[in-house]
Amino acid sequence: MPKINNHYLKLQAGYLFPEIARRVSAFSESNPDGDIIRLGIGDVTEPLSPAIIQAMHAAVDELATGSTFRGYGPEQGYDFLRDAIVEHEYLSRGVHIAAEEVFISDGSKCDSGNILDIFSRDVVVAVTDPVYPVYVDTNVMAGNTGAGGEQGRYEGLLYIPLTAENAFVPAVPDQRVDLIYLCYPNNPTGTVIDRETLQTWVEFARQSEAVILYDAAYERYISDDNIPHSIYEVDGAREVAIEFRSFSKTAGFTGVRCAFTVVPRELTGISASGEKVGIHGLWNRRQSTKFNGTSYVVQRGAAATYTPEGKQQIADVISFYLTNARLLREGLQSAGLTVYGGVHAPYVWLKTPGGQNSWEFFDDLLNKVHLVGTPGSGFGASGEGYFRLSAFNSRENIEEAVDRLRRVVA
Amino acid sequence: MPKINNHYLKLQAGYLFPEIARRVSAFSESNPDGDIIRLGIGDVTEPLSPAIIQAMHAAVDELATGSTFRGYGPEQGYDFLRDAIVEHEYLSRGVHIAAEEVFISDGSKCDSGNILDIFSRDVVVAVTDPVYPVYVDTNVMAGNTGAGGEQGRYEGLLYIPLTAENAFVPAVPDQRVDLIYLCYPNNPTGTVIDRETLQTWVEFARQSEAVILYDAAYERYISDDNIPHSIYEVDGAREVAIEFRSFSKTAGFTGVRCAFTVVPRELTGISASGEKVGIHGLWNRRQSTKFNGTSYVVQRGAAATYTPEGKQQIADVISFYLTNARLLREGLQSAGLTVYGGVHAPYVWLKTPGGQNSWEFFDDLLNKVHLVGTPGSGFGASGEGYFRLSAFNSRENIEEAVDRLRRVVA
Repeated sequence: MPKINNHYLKLQAGYLFPEIARRVSAFSESNPDGDIIRLGIGDVTEPLSPAIIQAMHAAVDELATGSTFRGYGPEQGYDFLRDAIVEHEYLSRGVHIAAEEVFISDGSKCDSGNILDIFSRDVVVAVTDPVYPVYVDTNVMAGNTGAGGEQGRYEGLLYIPLTAENAFVPAVPDQRVDLIYLCYPNNPTGTVIDRETLQTWVEFARQSEAVILYDAAYERYISDDNIPHSIYEVDGAREVAIEFRSFSKTAGFTGVRCAFTVVPRELTGISASGEKVGIHGLWNRRQSTKFNGTSYVVQRGAAATYTPEGKQQIADVISFYLTNARLLREGLQSAGLTVYGGVHAPYVWLKTPGGQNSWEFFDDLLNKVHLVGTPGSGFGASGEGYFRLSAFNSRENIEEAVDRLRRVVA
Repeated sequence: MPKINNHYLKLQAGYLFPEIARRVSAFSESNPDGDIIRLGIGDVTEPLSPAIIQAMHAAVDELATGSTFRGYGPEQGYDFLRDAIVEHEYLSRGVHIAAEEVFISDGSKCDSGNILDIFSRDVVVAVTDPVYPVYVDTNVMAGNTGAGGEQGRYEGLLYIPLTAENAFVPAVPDQRVDLIYLCYPNNPTGTVIDRETLQTWVEFARQSEAVILYDAAYERYISDDNIPHSIYEVDGAREVAIEFRSFSKTAGFTGVRCAFTVVPRELTGISASGEKVGIHGLWNRRQSTKFNGTSYVVQRGAAATYTPEGKQQIADVISFYLTNARLLREGLQSAGLTVYGGVHAPYVWLKTPGGQNSWEFFDDLLNKVHLVGTPGSGFGASGEGYFRLSAFNSRENIEEAVDRLRRVVA
């Protein structure tokens, strides 16, 4: 009988969001009339913008006719999309990225997990705490950690706390690390870091020859010029950073599936025999062999976000969500809660009231006012005593959610 | 500097198809007027069927409106598609597969590579030779092999020859193996195995507690009732087989991207401490953590292949490709070539004439008559002296290709 990957057995009880779904489902069964408002999982609610819809229809029609039909596309993505990304995401901010450094995929969740394929199994990995659980779980599954401990922490991972005490600004480690996951605007705390802080991280990575895995899935929510949208806005980042980007939260593609990962040519790792090896070539080989490109229709939809109409339309949607975030933030503050994030991000991070732990507050919200959020402790030990609310919902539901939260806190 | 996955450095010069693309591109540059016919990479050429187009348009429209918009779908795929697959692919053949055993994905290439994530790194792996290169390369990348040797064979892999001498029927090994890759109808040889042969394999796997990774991407091309479409048509296969299926070659989805993998509940592996562990749970955890579901629009398109109109339309397209295959086969035979496959598969596998090796014949075809095929040796050492032609093209090109081949052989 084949031996299984034993590292899977180290994983904790379940991925956070399925556990939330289980509790909500159990509640719904015993309360069929419960009018639940879901601000838990960060899933968009607004429909796709007209420019995207139009482009996807046109692409579907192309596939209906022999003369315009397309089969396999490049595993790395079509040039029309890679070129548009280079121009509108990078050149427009003065950042030079070559189209061949942009790898289109079906999701940042996939890419941020799959990237571990190209590294060795004895790398030292740093994550923030709290953190997007996928970074941790994929490292556990890859065998980059030891056993799980009491608070959900795994041996061998370096956790960098993000708490109110350090204003959610991650401190550079005082030890050698190989891979560092940073996500800004941050999921789950909704906080951001400024250019100077990011510069500090890039310098640390350069000095310690580490690679930063920079997740900028929420960059479109930034509205302050001193907050970098891309790590490549910082000098020297091309030598030390891989950047993950997604159309999920920028253009409502959570169900459409499109993302991209930037791997600069300068980036290197080291072989067992001590030679430098280009990371770009390794990722290209990984994607060519284990991936077959993103759906053509989807790539056309993604490219439409860079047309003048598309840009305006998705900016309007993001503005809508940011207003939701502001209403949540202000509503909770006026109810006496301590609130973080939610200014340059679609997430509000709050301190649970009355010393409740995160899951107690979760159960309270669900059972008393039928509101679903995400327990901070689900994102890591330092998230205990915090709670995440997502701004992805209708205005009506956001306003109603604020009313309900006031009732619970009162 | 992070250590890289050193196993990548064992990989041979490049994936087969990029090397072909490189030679074709070099030829095209020096022969800009060369009217190349491509029967190399197995990419479909007929447009999507009307039922699929209609379903995809409808799905795009659903995403345009708040009331019907969908964000994240289930990582395992939507029930509407899993249920349709169970009914039309399995129940209709008397095979009982539960919907929860069907995992929808964006491609069989991805799944057949990713499946290795859930197994240990000391598994013994058997592949046929010739073989779809992805099975081999992903095992190399995962560290399941030793170094590459002269004929492109890797130490530690067990190669099971498929040649004219054994009528392309793979013999069960006389040693213990953990994982066995079988692909029927076969890529690249276009040959098939009957129910009795497959039964022998299932019994071998049961006795030696191996898992068969059964790739049935081309099953829709079968037109003989004694040839199984699914390994689960054979008794006892649920305990020993994972099956990969794809919409790529059945419905023209090479650029649309949809596939599925069946993992029966009975299937187990063994942990380091000797306990049986369900493979279904491991794959579910892998997909939940490292994948975010297949595009909704794509899943709706795939489901449309199971409507009465959709079924008829895709059957017509497959019939068209099978006629192409027959014309190729018959044309080459009448030119005096020895030809295999091409009856229940879109591939024709021929013996290179005049003792040429596979790449010599490739270069001859390209340079003399501007025809692109795939060198058999690119699929493995036992493919040397063979050559693959794909039936995916227009009727006109297929007929022209036969004429050109006659000229080269004459």
